[in-house]
Amino acid sequence: MSHRPTINASVSPKGTLETLSQREVAQLSEAGSGNLYQLFRQCVLAILNTGARIDNAKTILDAYRDFEVRIHQQDRGVRLELLNAPADAFVDGEMIAGTREMLFSALRDIVYTASELENQRVDLNSSAGITDYVFHLLRNARTLRAGVEPKIVVCWGGHSISTEEYKYTKKVGHELGLRNLDVCTGCGPGVMKGPMKGATIGHAKQRHHGGRYLGLTEPGIIAAEAPNPIVNELVILPDIEKRLEAFVRVGHGIIIFPGGVGTAEEFLYLLGILMHPDNQELPFPLLLTGPKSAAPYFEQLHAFVGATLGEAAQRRYRILIDDPAEVAREMAKGLKEVKQFRRERNDAFHFNWLLKIDERFQRPFDPTHENMAALQLTKDIPPHKLAANLRRAFSGIVAGNVKENGVRLIEEHGPYEIHGDHQVMKPLDDLLQAFVKQHRMKLPGGAAYKPCYRVVGSGA
Amino acid sequence: MSHRPTINASVSPKGTLETLSQREVAQLSEAGSGNLYQLFRQCVLAILNTGARIDNAKTILDAYRDFEVRIHQQDRGVRLELLNAPADAFVDGEMIAGTREMLFSALRDIVYTASELENQRVDLNSSAGITDYVFHLLRNARTLRAGVEPKIVVCWGGHSISTEEYKYTKKVGHELGLRNLDVCTGCGPGVMKGPMKGATIGHAKQRHHGGRYLGLTEPGIIAAEAPNPIVNELVILPDIEKRLEAFVRVGHGIIIFPGGVGTAEEFLYLLGILMHPDNQELPFPLLLTGPKSAAPYFEQLHAFVGATLGEAAQRRYRILIDDPAEVAREMAKGLKEVKQFRRERNDAFHFNWLLKIDERFQRPFDPTHENMAALQLTKDIPPHKLAANLRRAFSGIVAGNVKENGVRLIEEHGPYEIHGDHQVMKPLDDLLQAFVKQHRMKLPGGAAYKPCYRVVGSGA
Amino acid sequence: MSHRPTINASVSPKGTLETLSQREVAQLSEAGSGNLYQLFRQCVLAILNTGARIDNAKTILDAYRDFEVRIHQQDRGVRLELLNAPADAFVDGEMIAGTREMLFSALRDIVYTASELENQRVDLNSSAGITDYVFHLLRNARTLRAGVEPKIVVCWGGHSISTEEYKYTKKVGHELGLRNLDVCTGCGPGVMKGPMKGATIGHAKQRHHGGRYLGLTEPGIIAAEAPNPIVNELVILPDIEKRLEAFVRVGHGIIIFPGGVGTAEEFLYLLGILMHPDNQELPFPLLLTGPKSAAPYFEQLHAFVGATLGEAAQRRYRILIDDPAEVAREMAKGLKEVKQFRRERNDAFHFNWLLKIDERFQRPFDPTHENMAALQLTKDIPPHKLAANLRRAFSGIVAGNVKENGVRLIEEHGPYEIHGDHQVMKPLDDLLQAFVKQHRMKLPGGAAYKPCYRVVGSGA
Amino acid sequence: MSHRPTINASVSPKGTLETLSQREVAQLSEAGSGNLYQLFRQCVLAILNTGARIDNAKTILDAYRDFEVRIHQQDRGVRLELLNAPADAFVDGEMIAGTREMLFSALRDIVYTASELENQRVDLNSSAGITDYVFHLLRNARTLRAGVEPKIVVCWGGHSISTEEYKYTKKVGHELGLRNLDVCTGCGPGVMKGPMKGATIGHAKQRHHGGRYLGLTEPGIIAAEAPNPIVNELVILPDIEKRLEAFVRVGHGIIIFPGGVGTAEEFLYLLGILMHPDNQELPFPLLLTGPKSAAPYFEQLHAFVGATLGEAAQRRYRILIDDPAEVAREMAKGLKEVKQFRRERNDAFHFNWLLKIDERFQRPFDPTHENMAALQLTKDIPPHKLAANLRRAFSGIVAGNVKENGVRLIEEHGPYEIHGDHQVMKPLDDLLQAFVKQHRMKLPGGAAYKPCYRVVGSGA
Repeated sequence: MSHRPTINASVSPKGTLETLSQREVAQLSEAGSGNLYQLFRQCVLAILNTGARIDNAKTILDAYRDFEVRIHQQDRGVRLELLNAPADAFVDGEMIAGTREMLFSALRDIVYTASELENQRVDLNSSAGITDYVFHLLRNARTLRAGVEPKIVVCWGGHSISTEEYKYTKKVGHELGLRNLDVCTGCGPGVMKGPMKGATIGHAKQRHHGGRYLGLTEPGIIAAEAPNPIVNELVILPDIEKRLEAFVRVGHGIIIFPGGVGTAEEFLYLLGILMHPDNQELPFPLLLTGPKSAAPYFEQLHAFVGATLGEAAQRRYRILIDDPAEVAREMAKGLKEVKQFRRERNDAFHFNWLLKIDERFQRPFDPTHENMAALQLTKDIPPHKLAANLRRAFSGIVAGNVKENGVRLIEEHGPYEIHGDHQVMKPLDDLLQAFVKQHRMKLPGGAAYKPCYRVVGSGA
Repeated sequence: MSHRPTINASVSPKGTLETLSQREVAQLSEAGSGNLYQLFRQCVLAILNTGARIDNAKTILDAYRDFEVRIHQQDRGVRLELLNAPADAFVDGEMIAGTREMLFSALRDIVYTASELENQRVDLNSSAGITDYVFHLLRNARTLRAGVEPKIVVCWGGHSISTEEYKYTKKVGHELGLRNLDVCTGCGPGVMKGPMKGATIGHAKQRHHGGRYLGLTEPGIIAAEAPNPIVNELVILPDIEKRLEAFVRVGHGIIIFPGGVGTAEEFLYLLGILMHPDNQELPFPLLLTGPKSAAPYFEQLHAFVGATLGEAAQRRYRILIDDPAEVAREMAKGLKEVKQFRRERNDAFHFNWLLKIDERFQRPFDPTHENMAALQLTKDIPPHKLAANLRRAFSGIVAGNVKENGVRLIEEHGPYEIHGDHQVMKPLDDLLQAFVKQHRMKLPGGAAYKPCYRVVGSGA
Repeated sequence: MSHRPTINASVSPKGTLETLSQREVAQLSEAGSGNLYQLFRQCVLAILNTGARIDNAKTILDAYRDFEVRIHQQDRGVRLELLNAPADAFVDGEMIAGTREMLFSALRDIVYTASELENQRVDLNSSAGITDYVFHLLRNARTLRAGVEPKIVVCWGGHSISTEEYKYTKKVGHELGLRNLDVCTGCGPGVMKGPMKGATIGHAKQRHHGGRYLGLTEPGIIAAEAPNPIVNELVILPDIEKRLEAFVRVGHGIIIFPGGVGTAEEFLYLLGILMHPDNQELPFPLLLTGPKSAAPYFEQLHAFVGATLGEAAQRRYRILIDDPAEVAREMAKGLKEVKQFRRERNDAFHFNWLLKIDERFQRPFDPTHENMAALQLTKDIPPHKLAANLRRAFSGIVAGNVKENGVRLIEEHGPYEIHGDHQVMKPLDDLLQAFVKQHRMKLPGGAAYKPCYRVVGSGA
Repeated sequence: MSHRPTINASVSPKGTLETLSQREVAQLSEAGSGNLYQLFRQCVLAILNTGARIDNAKTILDAYRDFEVRIHQQDRGVRLELLNAPADAFVDGEMIAGTREMLFSALRDIVYTASELENQRVDLNSSAGITDYVFHLLRNARTLRAGVEPKIVVCWGGHSISTEEYKYTKKVGHELGLRNLDVCTGCGPGVMKGPMKGATIGHAKQRHHGGRYLGLTEPGIIAAEAPNPIVNELVILPDIEKRLEAFVRVGHGIIIFPGGVGTAEEFLYLLGILMHPDNQELPFPLLLTGPKSAAPYFEQLHAFVGATLGEAAQRRYRILIDDPAEVAREMAKGLKEVKQFRRERNDAFHFNWLLKIDERFQRPFDPTHENMAALQLTKDIPPHKLAANLRRAFSGIVAGNVKENGVRLIEEHGPYEIHGDHQVMKPLDDLLQAFVKQHRMKLPGGAAYKPCYRVVGSGA
């Protein structure tokens, strides 16, 4: 691990891009506010690690301990100096243009996030305030484009899937691209990359030059799921909840491919929102799809939703097996309804203001053992609240599996305990065990999976 | 005046432009924060009044008392609804695209300025804080383009000049355009428009498609100097001092055409800055030019500078009479030195960080009778401080001539009294009287000029 | 005249432009087919002479006797080497981009014309064959753009007009530009330039970036009417008849400004065509306009048409005095009818196939004394045939005034004699004398006008 | 086969594209010159068949017997009406943009080729005349772009290769794309498509928007090797020899992937040219590459070249096994030499004028039994002449395998007989048998290969 090839380089943004004030340059320098520098360094390292196959944040950070990034203000604008950078991001000594672009996106987002938090206007204590904050972050990243018809399709799913599943995501992406639809994912390999690659070919065939490959990430996950260089718009949201809100406010429809517990978290997040009474009328195309081999996975998930959240929840999505063209057609149809709905209600095409997101879904969930144990997972609460709690449970498990702080907590205190009544705990236990059996709970390093949780009460 | 043709219209930004959050829309609506609405309404009215020949803010505001602008959030983004709008801004019922663009620039700047002032980061109590604020306003307006070589030429001068002088500014603009230089002015007619028109033709001949016609204005002056629709980048700075700072930080060289007391204010502002000891080495091309008939005007000004600020001040500029090509050549030569200097010092091409602006020049000067009377106009203070005070004196006179609050103060309390020692007051009095004789102190309405000041002590 | 400033330069086309085969390069070199070289040299010289105020072809050719152009094939394509070139086409030693572009347009057209004439397919003996030839020349010059709605407005008029008339053409051009209409003229100064300049400003205000300023010329006239650098599409047609056909097939409407006998020729050419029975239904907006001072000119012309061709001819145009906005509005209205008509008949927007042009109008008219004397100018032939003959008479007078061969013929044989019956000859004589009185028959050099014709039979 | 899904559609070119004269429209209509219509119909059908997996021209033509294409002139230009068209070219009823583009490329080339043949200038009897003709066809197709540095990499190889080989071509394409190189192939699937797909992804990562995917084909092969829709520049040359000349004059370097006898033909064509004494100094990067499994194929080919043409021939190429990045690096290095060479010799970057192509390689070879039998395949002629004859032999075998006329001849007269001396015939026989063994002689339909030739004299 210690002998990975590295390179020293100096990069400037191509064309007229970001400009920084002297104060911002100072803030980002190592001597400046240390936190900001650390955050920036970590994101840059993740972006540069784009070609490598490591998906363990800790491993990457360890592998390039002596990596440094320095920021300079020069005649032509900002310049980054990179020392001991991963060689993968370079072709014959020159940085890949897409990678270079993303470095400056990271710069932009980190500077803006820091600046906004000093802004008294930002009110993170109210639901509206949080949404406003997400809006401003996205606007500053030029993600919000007025006047463009709804066509951003979010693709969720595992970053570590089978070759067959990966190829399937490429095919779906190809069909989306042939219909001039854009693709938004959480960055990273697997489902995050396949649809973008496919869409690139589809867009090329359609001579569609402005195709958007939007990657939404957050500092806590970027190292484990490095954005692939096809991503031509990268936004780093400050935390997982802002990132999830960005997905559902900016995306016009969502496709869920096979994945693990992280995918389940995202699915439950969305279901919980869509089940909120205020959102009953609101169209939101949601498709679950995969190759034939993934059918059991979706059956299991479908059964879990039925058992815990009920039929109403099941009616918010459609499962389509092994039919990429039909998936794209169905999505295109759904997007037309979205367009019609927003036009009638005067809602913006570029930001889903009308979607009601309960504060429960906006607040960061800190996956301490105490918080995990306190989750109310019973059928006597309204389904959209149960969905919120299940989402948190999955979120905790993801943290325990791959996130730095979660992994450390598990190392210290042992597995989380999750409580609840039998009607919920039994299906949950079944689902998680099926994930393990289907090898969807792989640890980053590839080691055999040792659960970071214990379901308690399922036998009650 | 009461029967000007008006029109009702609904306009959307062309292409993907500004997006607003729900909060911002609410703020700007009439029911919202009243101040912001009033400010926005006034700017919109000024922009729409673009074709008309009135340059009296009060008259315009009176003429369209029932003008209203409403802001709506819709599927394709923001839409403005205009009621009883001046018909001049429309061609066969459709708004001129350049005018439409400027409406949304006004929207952008007013929203941003309001938002920034709530930002704790903004520190208007320090010189560096004010500069940072100006930087952020310009960056938000996308005025700062990294990587572009120095080529923004600021043109200052009167908005109400003779036909011969106007034609001369067009010729200079043409020569600038032929050399692919960009033009920045304070918006409005006269010198603000001539160089842009000329440059447009020059750029067309050179097939230069990205020519920039940058207009920097402020709410207090925009009504009197409505931006002409050639301006393809409009920025509304919050006050006169921010606007002046924007000119000298963003412009790479300055040409001064004949003008009145406002032009003299700008000239002294710049001289005062350039004479600061810290700026001694800093190249800043500054040319004074006009047709043959304007020679006496520049001689007068030159003599005034010599008498009050001395020879060192005179060395910072060059006077060129009746030679548009030479003006452009000289400017191009000066810009090369600017480029060289910034490259060596690692200063940004897009923002003149190295230019030292004393806080005196950054603080708004409130032209009360008391403040005007207190100005120290004596030769025993350093020239750059004397320049600052002279600048303020001229600023007060401009306000007394054309600005809403200034005019009202004069109406209430009579003319300002300006004090100082004979060595300064005599040349000042001479200059002002020459302005009156040369018809450079015309009042907006065209009435005979009645001075808004009395020079006291010139006889001492 | 012998000491005009010259410059040596080497120019390449900007961007990816024309490529030549080895055979074509050889053809164009001085050693190659001498004729082609001479033709090319003459056109290049005319284009370079763009800024100068000489409009006498002979004078220009004499002034730059030692001018040479050499053509080289290089790694990056064709390069032109210019020796002793007029310095006017350069700004600080660099050729104006628009001028450079036009040099390569000349190259393109001369090479293509030469090549086409070797093509057996080209049939210059039939009317359809000539039209096909014009189509191919225009297509090769990329003038024909499919899918674009009718908006090319041809402006005809004198190249040597009063300042007031010139300003008026600028205003009309401005109004056309504000309506996003394109301008096509015959190149050169005066009416050829004013509308383009005005439209450039209008287009800039409307942020219309693809504005077309189309110049159609021919080798015999280009030296006398050098294209101004605003022309961004230059096409050199092989002779006057092809050029006139190009105007009416490519233009969607025509505005006639004041001019002299050349303008009258163009006007009669068009009237003669529009009066052909086959064109009775075909809409073709034709407006005659000028400032107030030009009213008598148009009255004279109108009377002449009434007296010779009759009321039906008068109904094909409208005269509008001193109202630029109304001219543009009327033209826009007319263009809508053209669009509607072509849509219904499936005729191309980009080429007016349906316009019937009698072979009489397509055949070059050789203005020998014999041919001029033989013109049948009597009222007993159908009006559209009389129009054709009147057109030829004017064409001969233009040649006798300014064209190389015509001038020589007059020098040798004295003035042309024009015969006809009184009803035609009287109005003709009146018109021509009015032109002389109104100073519309100025000779290029500015000398007093000495008629190159004698009207015979007007006294009958 | 009779029930393939079809569709009726009407398509127009996107944007401003091709325009046709009335005469050209008439020529192309079914009632017009029948030959041209048939040719056009066949090309259109091939292009539409793009998605299907049939590569047998006859089968395709049979499958869509009732397919018709009608050409209409309309207001917005040319429109094609398609009856009973293959449904594969459409997505949800709309034609894929790339496919649509190619239809109009076919139109352009067929019209131009027909027109040029009527041009007396075209001299197909001399070598220079043929080259000039190829130049004009390519220029008309806008393939020749002046001023662009050498970066067109031609990829040759089989259209029917193993999955492993196909993936390898994608990887090489990806590496080429990452270095901003363009890809040119002969259209069709397999090696024709893989590098383009890979380069598309590479270009996307490098944000390289103008990537060229150039497909050169000819009417005789287009049906069997339909262009895939990634091809963004399609040129239909009139016959195989013009197409081969286009490849070597327009391409700056060539990569040969595994293929069959067609690939061998191309390889020998190029070797024969490069071995001409006049080309000794001329750099022309030529790389043979494939995955590990393809190593024996290249060894066989290399041995065959050594045995027949000698070591000098072997020195003109390099074999690289299983190293896509090294292939791209080596090519990039070679292109630099090409650039240097053309700069020094003043040869155009866009057309390899200096490459000497012997007339033998330019003349069409008609693969009759008589011509095949008459080929002189002996070692006593100079190697570049032997290469020419071997090329013809392979050409005949390709015709006998897949081309309409060749297949018919074989059906009628039995296999070709190829004669020669043992030193040539033995290696030839070995090579061909190896091709059969390696399944590189597959017949379009997939049937077992029955040789269309007999090697005679190899036993001598």
